[in-house]
Amino acid sequence: MLARILPRLGSGASALLGPGDDAAVVAAPDSRFVVTTDLMVHGPDFRLAWSSPFDLGWKAAATNLTDVAAMGARPTALVVAIAAPPETPVPLLEGIADGLRAGLDALAPGAGVVGGDLSASRVLTIAVTAFGDLEGRQPVLRSGARAGDVLAHAGARGAAARGLALLFEQGRDASGEPDADLAAALRRAHPELVGAQLAPEPPVAAGVAAAVAGATSMLDVSDGLAKDAARIARASGVGLDFDSGALGDEPRWALGGAEDHGMLATFPADAALPEGFERLGVVTSDAGVVSLDGRPIDPGGWDPFADWDGQAG
Amino acid sequence: MLARILPRLGSGASALLGPGDDAAVVAAPDSRFVVTTDLMVHGPDFRLAWSSPFDLGWKAAATNLTDVAAMGARPTALVVAIAAPPETPVPLLEGIADGLRAGLDALAPGAGVVGGDLSASRVLTIAVTAFGDLEGRQPVLRSGARAGDVLAHAGARGAAARGLALLFEQGRDASGEPDADLAAALRRAHPELVGAQLAPEPPVAAGVAAAVAGATSMLDVSDGLAKDAARIARASGVGLDFDSGALGDEPRWALGGAEDHGMLATFPADAALPEGFERLGVVTSDAGVVSLDGRPIDPGGWDPFADWDGQAG
Repeated sequence: MLARILPRLGSGASALLGPGDDAAVVAAPDSRFVVTTDLMVHGPDFRLAWSSPFDLGWKAAATNLTDVAAMGARPTALVVAIAAPPETPVPLLEGIADGLRAGLDALAPGAGVVGGDLSASRVLTIAVTAFGDLEGRQPVLRSGARAGDVLAHAGARGAAARGLALLFEQGRDASGEPDADLAAALRRAHPELVGAQLAPEPPVAAGVAAAVAGATSMLDVSDGLAKDAARIARASGVGLDFDSGALGDEPRWALGGAEDHGMLATFPADAALPEGFERLGVVTSDAGVVSLDGRPIDPGGWDPFADWDGQAG
Repeated sequence: MLARILPRLGSGASALLGPGDDAAVVAAPDSRFVVTTDLMVHGPDFRLAWSSPFDLGWKAAATNLTDVAAMGARPTALVVAIAAPPETPVPLLEGIADGLRAGLDALAPGAGVVGGDLSASRVLTIAVTAFGDLEGRQPVLRSGARAGDVLAHAGARGAAARGLALLFEQGRDASGEPDADLAAALRRAHPELVGAQLAPEPPVAAGVAAAVAGATSMLDVSDGLAKDAARIARASGVGLDFDSGALGDEPRWALGGAEDHGMLATFPADAALPEGFERLGVVTSDAGVVSLDGRPIDPGGWDPFADWDGQAG
């Protein structure tokens, strides 16, 4: 089965030795490499009635690439391990591979899949580990924001969560089961919202641009602007104050919606914001506090251990 | 939950930035890094009645470290992603972490866990990605064996498979369910066999030693000597002939038993074999052929898609 999948996944410009031996060899010209790992599990993380195999591969690439980019690194390579039920049709695995390849081509040209593993499991599970090169720069941490910095963001705000809400509200049949036809119709009617949930197009290149522009802190917004802002606030010992006028017509979705995978960063007040970034507010000296127009807010967010209802579909 | 687990896992000497940000930063002094990834899934890969959480962590470390070592690289770091049922007790996850830590300390001192992910799933799944440094050497591939080379091996031969057979034969109750008390008694009676299956101690350091000694090809024996020998034979376009006199009293177990995770390597005829390696035979010009005392044999081996019966326990 691996023999049918691996040829669909080029190993990329950084692969000194690709799949086929006990391990791969990847170039690390910077003498350091950035690494992140993430699991996508059928049930808490996706429904097969809503996501195509291509979507799953694309999203697995996109979400890991943004974690690399949020360090200010250029993504170079992935390894992918898939566990699937023994009766899984090969085209499903090929579709995941095609989505991975397309996601890499669109979001991190030159990066490839250098290795993988395929196992049996009752639950379809996709484990991606992604690598990046810092090109001589220091990594951009969550801990570097300073009072007086500008708070800025690149990417969608709330679209992925609004797409997921549409799927839960209108993408299930009368018995509550996820329905492929209803989801497809929703996606045609609201491509920018449902697409942002099922196959997001995060601003991966903005990560390197922010680092080059002197970003003092940065992270990938996976759990909503407010919850992820709180992570910068805690790590940096500062406060982050959002300007409601910059958050659009739906500040609740913008602040609370998970899975947008934009880049939230802070910059020195006199820095020119790189392309794609918009000013959302300012860094204050109120250690650990996230606020909106100066009023503290309570960051929420998704916790798969607390929030998954055990359903798949 | 991550906050209780991560402190148990030191991030090691190669971690320039450990867990806690979007990604880790790992030293790659060689300007390349070796990477391998592997999934362990409840059911096809382990039974919770037989393996303790500590065993699972240990084995996850051991099996990935051997893949790095089989390239002739020194292991530097791991990332670990775990998906577990929401009702999983925290001590189970702590036990996995303790086993990972102990396995690293025993088999690859100085290496640590630089990052991770924790997700919910109906099936306990452990995804490890391991890294290594080549220290300026070329990687030892499967494709470099030459006719006339010596065939040699370091590590156990057949012990892990014999341990697994004991567990299936005598570690299940009258209804066929895996039984923890029966397994514990078996492990006391046959520690070297059952232990080799549940918490193997592969010769990780032998990988670097073989590379330094000039090994022309090498791999980690995960599917049995015969099946893995066939991989070298195909990749190198040579034959590998085992000497039955070197295989001990149980050549069937030695050749067919999976999961020993020893190092099978070829060396120039005049090379001094490094400590831990024993001569098992010779490399011939019979492209793709594995033989025993000159008679071709049919390599078998475990395929989770074909061979898993769907049971867990």
